[in-house]
Amino acid sequence: MRGFSLTQAIRRAVAIRPETVAVIDGDQAFSWRVFADRVARLAAAFKDLGVGPGDRIVLVALNSHRTLEAFYGAMQAGGVIVPLNHRLGLGEIAAQADDCAPTVVILGPEFASLADVLGKDPSGNARVLIHCASGPAPAGFHAYEDLLAEHEPADDAGRSGDDLACLLYTSGTTSAAKGVMLSHANFCANTANVVPELAMDETTVHLHHGPLFHVASAARLFSTTHVAGTHVILPTGVTHATFVPTMFRMMLDEPSLRTTDLSSLRYVSYGSAAMPEPLLREFMAALPGTRLLQSYGMTELSPVVTILGWRDHLPDAADSGRLRSAGRPAMLAEVAVVDPADRPLPTGSHGEIVASGPMVMQGYWNRPDLTAEALRGGWMHTGDIGYFDEAGYLYVVDRLKDMIITGGENVWSQEVENALASHPAVAQCAVIGKPDPHWGEAVHAVVNLREGMAASESELIAHCRSLIAHYKCPRSVDIRDRPMPLSGANKILKSELRAELEGRGS
Amino acid sequence: MRGFSLTQAIRRAVAIRPETVAVIDGDQAFSWRVFADRVARLAAAFKDLGVGPGDRIVLVALNSHRTLEAFYGAMQAGGVIVPLNHRLGLGEIAAQADDCAPTVVILGPEFASLADVLGKDPSGNARVLIHCASGPAPAGFHAYEDLLAEHEPADDAGRSGDDLACLLYTSGTTSAAKGVMLSHANFCANTANVVPELAMDETTVHLHHGPLFHVASAARLFSTTHVAGTHVILPTGVTHATFVPTMFRMMLDEPSLRTTDLSSLRYVSYGSAAMPEPLLREFMAALPGTRLLQSYGMTELSPVVTILGWRDHLPDAADSGRLRSAGRPAMLAEVAVVDPADRPLPTGSHGEIVASGPMVMQGYWNRPDLTAEALRGGWMHTGDIGYFDEAGYLYVVDRLKDMIITGGENVWSQEVENALASHPAVAQCAVIGKPDPHWGEAVHAVVNLREGMAASESELIAHCRSLIAHYKCPRSVDIRDRPMPLSGANKILKSELRAELEGRGS
Repeated sequence: MRGFSLTQAIRRAVAIRPETVAVIDGDQAFSWRVFADRVARLAAAFKDLGVGPGDRIVLVALNSHRTLEAFYGAMQAGGVIVPLNHRLGLGEIAAQADDCAPTVVILGPEFASLADVLGKDPSGNARVLIHCASGPAPAGFHAYEDLLAEHEPADDAGRSGDDLACLLYTSGTTSAAKGVMLSHANFCANTANVVPELAMDETTVHLHHGPLFHVASAARLFSTTHVAGTHVILPTGVTHATFVPTMFRMMLDEPSLRTTDLSSLRYVSYGSAAMPEPLLREFMAALPGTRLLQSYGMTELSPVVTILGWRDHLPDAADSGRLRSAGRPAMLAEVAVVDPADRPLPTGSHGEIVASGPMVMQGYWNRPDLTAEALRGGWMHTGDIGYFDEAGYLYVVDRLKDMIITGGENVWSQEVENALASHPAVAQCAVIGKPDPHWGEAVHAVVNLREGMAASESELIAHCRSLIAHYKCPRSVDIRDRPMPLSGANKILKSELRAELEGRGS
Repeated sequence: MRGFSLTQAIRRAVAIRPETVAVIDGDQAFSWRVFADRVARLAAAFKDLGVGPGDRIVLVALNSHRTLEAFYGAMQAGGVIVPLNHRLGLGEIAAQADDCAPTVVILGPEFASLADVLGKDPSGNARVLIHCASGPAPAGFHAYEDLLAEHEPADDAGRSGDDLACLLYTSGTTSAAKGVMLSHANFCANTANVVPELAMDETTVHLHHGPLFHVASAARLFSTTHVAGTHVILPTGVTHATFVPTMFRMMLDEPSLRTTDLSSLRYVSYGSAAMPEPLLREFMAALPGTRLLQSYGMTELSPVVTILGWRDHLPDAADSGRLRSAGRPAMLAEVAVVDPADRPLPTGSHGEIVASGPMVMQGYWNRPDLTAEALRGGWMHTGDIGYFDEAGYLYVVDRLKDMIITGGENVWSQEVENALASHPAVAQCAVIGKPDPHWGEAVHAVVNLREGMAASESELIAHCRSLIAHYKCPRSVDIRDRPMPLSGANKILKSELRAELEGRGS
């Protein structure tokens, strides 16, 4: 046990805070001693059900104390936890399960019917199923609490360092979902990078409102345990939380925001998608006592490689334009901007963002070809376009695949979205390329207006023209009544917007 | 470059703070850009002089900006830096150099005469010598600044993870000096553990007053670079410093302490030897605006595994008796107390302190036998005796080898030292076992009195009897006029006191 270990964190938490609260889930609370005991019993059950070193355990469940136990129980049994996105289609979930070939499948009660597709492997052999809930289980399932009652706590299998901890499926930079292999050391590196920036310690009470199949939530699960803090599944006295921009909008639009006591909330971190500056400033004004921190990264980077710290959100720094940046390299990270031949580019030049360090994934499960491509030259290629300023701040201008080429000019969709988002009537927007016989692609915007507000297509285009170059402005705007299609991590799915557009065009 | 790396920290510092001060050395200051350039040129010179992956570079020098450059230049060339303790005898220094078989030897101007013994290997072949100073070099040496001027900056050799970074010689738990093999990941783990506890960030200005051949100084060198802080060789506007107890005494006895502006000093960490509580309280009273942090560990642990945080030094916590503890396990560390058969002992029981985690050394250089012994069962055996309290705080009661057995009773020398140190006339003391025909060992104290104060042997023994059990009290006290024999790290050398005692007794 000489390496970096995620399960060591539980033993330490028991050593230093045995009777304090590890997990609050609705009206239930578990001390670190009880939580550790439940995890160790679950690990014993997993071993008994055939889980050996490196075996996968698939989890499809809403967040609960049992979800947290499953993460740690799997790792403590020597296994690899594979939390799947329950919002995916049945076919996608089945394909991911078949790809990772799990020894055990855990299903929350809301997803018990998935047993129809996940209950057997491609050869027709039955898989071990666990019903992740209290009380008796449906036919064919082991009952979760029975497994705990029937097993004595098992010793930690002692995996660490480069041993796999998690497999997280992501569509990443290409369309095929890939299992990102993240190790114990990968997530410990993330913990080392974020703990000082967020001043996390044993008094931290972290809100898990985001789905734990997403890397940002999983990473904070690990770092909160490493500081022996408290996990909260439903909010009460929360000190730390992690949001994506869409959630900022949702919160600001929630009438009770201004009547709710949020004074305990010390830190909010955000990331996962470009944050429109007006939205950020509105949120900062609404929660003046809360420190904000932005992080940038991706599943393949466990996930953080740059941080815009809370000091960069203070008025002086914010007015320097830095709120539009993704911050500076995290303590253990090296980040560069390169040209298509992987040569480093000078300050100010646009290119692909690449990163290296102990947070870089071990590779893509079963995909040595994609792994070699993504990690060529020892750097993780993010597929994002960005540039550094003179002070070492990184600006992410777009996804490589979201860049629009119109009439030979590169247009970064996020720059156009920032212009649109600054219009007072715009609630959410997305800018994509629309196939165009003359220009190759034409800039096209999809917009949700704020409730009770109006704006015409021409008004929005004129607003953009007052802010950015003519060729970058939308040539067409779809003012949409329906909500935007969102991913499990609440990011706008531009791929679906493009598909809708092509469907309409055909 | 996917692993934990110490040299990545320099590139990050250049990326985020190129023109801010990296090193202040007397009246000289070097920006991160200039420091990195000098390090890269030195790395090129090392490569040119034959340093390949894993080759050792011996350094004997006082602290200076060149010492810091030598550390990073060696690692960036792919080598392993071996800073030797210049206070050792000539024979010891030569033996350590022969043990690690260096490709290059760097000597500070004060130690140029060591070329007589370090200039040739045991087979009589000349070693490459570098004169670590400005200006021309003596015959047989390369001039440091010439090497920099003659070489273009080299790329980083890219060592990381378990690759060796440093070899630090220590007498450790046995008398033979051993080269402790510490990797890039080992020191990164230490950085991850201490940075949040000391709130280190890019505004940190760390004072390197301790010798860099000692692990505590070397570790803080690395962590200060990782946060892109500023290194100070002579003090000015210092925010962080690391002391051992003897230095606390020296500072408190310095008349100018109370007239010097120490308001910039935010954090002082201390460790390396047991801290008498009265001395600690005196220091806290003298520097009320400075936060204190104790860490416990050893060279083999890179070095920190437990931390008594600054909050534990606040009046409420301090009054709970916790000031006598070494704190709780650091974020990435697992610490246990075991019996002689390596079985874990319950809370409150005395036994050997063992530790595991990513900070555990790779082993002892050339000594697989000692490595296997020290790391048996996957745990580093510290050779210290201690116990945990109910709240998970570790109390170090003694070195295994410093424990005195008198009339069949175990006496922890530190408990007796704490009793003696609480006498107002005692400046420093050490308690050792004196061979005794009747009791096996008799408790013997060696004491330095404070200047201008007096206390008799019988008065000191009576003072101890008022505080601790009769059998633990000294049976003899040597009131000593000479200073205590100190190690390079300013620890009292009990081995020398024992030798003096045996010399006198024979």
